[in-house]
Amino acid sequence: MKVSELGEFGLIDRLVEMVGDISDSRLIIGIGDDTAAWHGDTSIQLATVDCLIQDVHFSLGTASWEEVGWKALAVNLSDIAAMGGLPRYALVSLALPDDTEVDNVTALYQGMLELARQSETAIIGGNVSSAPQLNIHITVLGSTASSAKYILTRSAAKPGDKVAVTGYLGAAAAGLEMLSKNLKFAPETTASLRKAFLHPCPRILEGQLLVEQGVKTAIDISDGLIADLSHICQASQVGAGIEVDRVPISPPVKANFGDRALELALAGGEDYELLFTARSEFIEKIQAAAACSITIIGEILADKIGEIALVDSQGNPVALPKAGWNHFTSR
Amino acid sequence: MKVSELGEFGLIDRLVEMVGDISDSRLIIGIGDDTAAWHGDTSIQLATVDCLIQDVHFSLGTASWEEVGWKALAVNLSDIAAMGGLPRYALVSLALPDDTEVDNVTALYQGMLELARQSETAIIGGNVSSAPQLNIHITVLGSTASSAKYILTRSAAKPGDKVAVTGYLGAAAAGLEMLSKNLKFAPETTASLRKAFLHPCPRILEGQLLVEQGVKTAIDISDGLIADLSHICQASQVGAGIEVDRVPISPPVKANFGDRALELALAGGEDYELLFTARSEFIEKIQAAAACSITIIGEILADKIGEIALVDSQGNPVALPKAGWNHFTSR
Repeated sequence: MKVSELGEFGLIDRLVEMVGDISDSRLIIGIGDDTAAWHGDTSIQLATVDCLIQDVHFSLGTASWEEVGWKALAVNLSDIAAMGGLPRYALVSLALPDDTEVDNVTALYQGMLELARQSETAIIGGNVSSAPQLNIHITVLGSTASSAKYILTRSAAKPGDKVAVTGYLGAAAAGLEMLSKNLKFAPETTASLRKAFLHPCPRILEGQLLVEQGVKTAIDISDGLIADLSHICQASQVGAGIEVDRVPISPPVKANFGDRALELALAGGEDYELLFTARSEFIEKIQAAAACSITIIGEILADKIGEIALVDSQGNPVALPKAGWNHFTSR
Repeated sequence: MKVSELGEFGLIDRLVEMVGDISDSRLIIGIGDDTAAWHGDTSIQLATVDCLIQDVHFSLGTASWEEVGWKALAVNLSDIAAMGGLPRYALVSLALPDDTEVDNVTALYQGMLELARQSETAIIGGNVSSAPQLNIHITVLGSTASSAKYILTRSAAKPGDKVAVTGYLGAAAAGLEMLSKNLKFAPETTASLRKAFLHPCPRILEGQLLVEQGVKTAIDISDGLIADLSHICQASQVGAGIEVDRVPISPPVKANFGDRALELALAGGEDYELLFTARSEFIEKIQAAAACSITIIGEILADKIGEIALVDSQGNPVALPKAGWNHFTSR
């Protein structure tokens, strides 16, 4: 069987099974959440790795080297944010063709360093290697704030929790579509969609806020709202209902993508917003304290474990669009 | 300017300069040694990343998937060993073509897990992604044993130190040459050279022994003896002399590679032995305690900073072979 037949998540399940149970009394979470987590002496330690690969995750025909550098770090910081952690150190493994211009590599680092400075992350190590395509694998180490007793996991959702999301959805996928299909929009729309896809801002402060307000369950939206909510439902052994009319579609997507706007918001992925579940009263406190919009879009259900039900405002079922980004099988 | 003109080490220097000084009171070493290092609460924490890229570091025509998995982890554990540390956690970022057989991916993990178990390293996280070529980027986190006050750095060599090396050199480069040129040898030679190139055993115990015996300076031999000793000399602001007749050439290399055996041992790279410097009396104690051979091959000099002088047993200069593996410029 080929990995394209098994799919990304099937392959991960197979590898998790091979790795098996780890006998380490300090380990809290191994493979299977946004980051690994273990008890340090005074706080919980976090580690995550993610990569961007040329012509898979980006094209140098449409993305600048600075943007690629920024995004390569951003996708990792987003995983730390989704655990309610603060990033601290990054290690960068860079593989690139021999004929790459040095100025392009330094531009890539400039993009990465800009975000590193903003997020107080120090690049403390790395590796450079020759390769046929540019690819960037970054590991970020982080920890919870010393006062934080908890981390945000995928496995703590409970029936009766509301499902909520930070910010707006669909713009990253719309940006990818705009760049890859060379779609033309008004300048401010073009800039906004491009930024959403290539310059995402990890929700580190919002992750902190969730932990402070007692939230236990979160994930960052990388695969798409439905796919990532499915990850929560599977890990928590619950189901979920989403009222599609409540989904906060990014305004430029709503204005320019017609009938496809909802699909982009539900299944597009790469928005790097936080998707979380909690009792209404917690979410109300977060809405009052957050600098970004926080929208309740549905609720956690006790039945249909692992499944996501989409309904309209009248409660009628809505057909599910293609379910999120899955390496190996979705293209 | 292209990276092939600047070279691997020139590019790293440029990126280190961009990253700049890191204001982090706990950080001991950022970019520029075998691993990054920082003060944890009760021990020194270590982190390193390295990668294997298809058709750059290995060919699936000559290496099995198990061997690639083993080696991908081994090269990282070797960096931890070279700091005198113990590995603890690994994160694996795997990029592979869609049409890869799942059985091959599990074989890769089997090779990796075999070494992980032997070295008591837990795989706690990772990432899988689609890519045109197989590439494996692994981050390993480790720490010093709680009793260890020190780590082994590249920057502590002092004039008067002897230069010593664990084990034998040249077999990994000979193995690569054998596989890539399809050279034919006796079965036991073939097996031994293949093992040296594709199944290296990181010197974790020996790294511990060095720390326990008071050694302060070490590096693992990945780029080649001369290149790696140059790294020590540059970081320590010293020179070094190597008596070439003392270099412990791997017996099957000496027996089968004639005049080229010395070049393979001096410049071949990927032996993953430990190269270290210390006063003679420390090295004598290590020789008495080590399970592997420990050979003194030269000494650290106060002059000709960053340079390596090769001499024969009569003290006459010997011409320097091609100086080790350097991505982007050496091929």
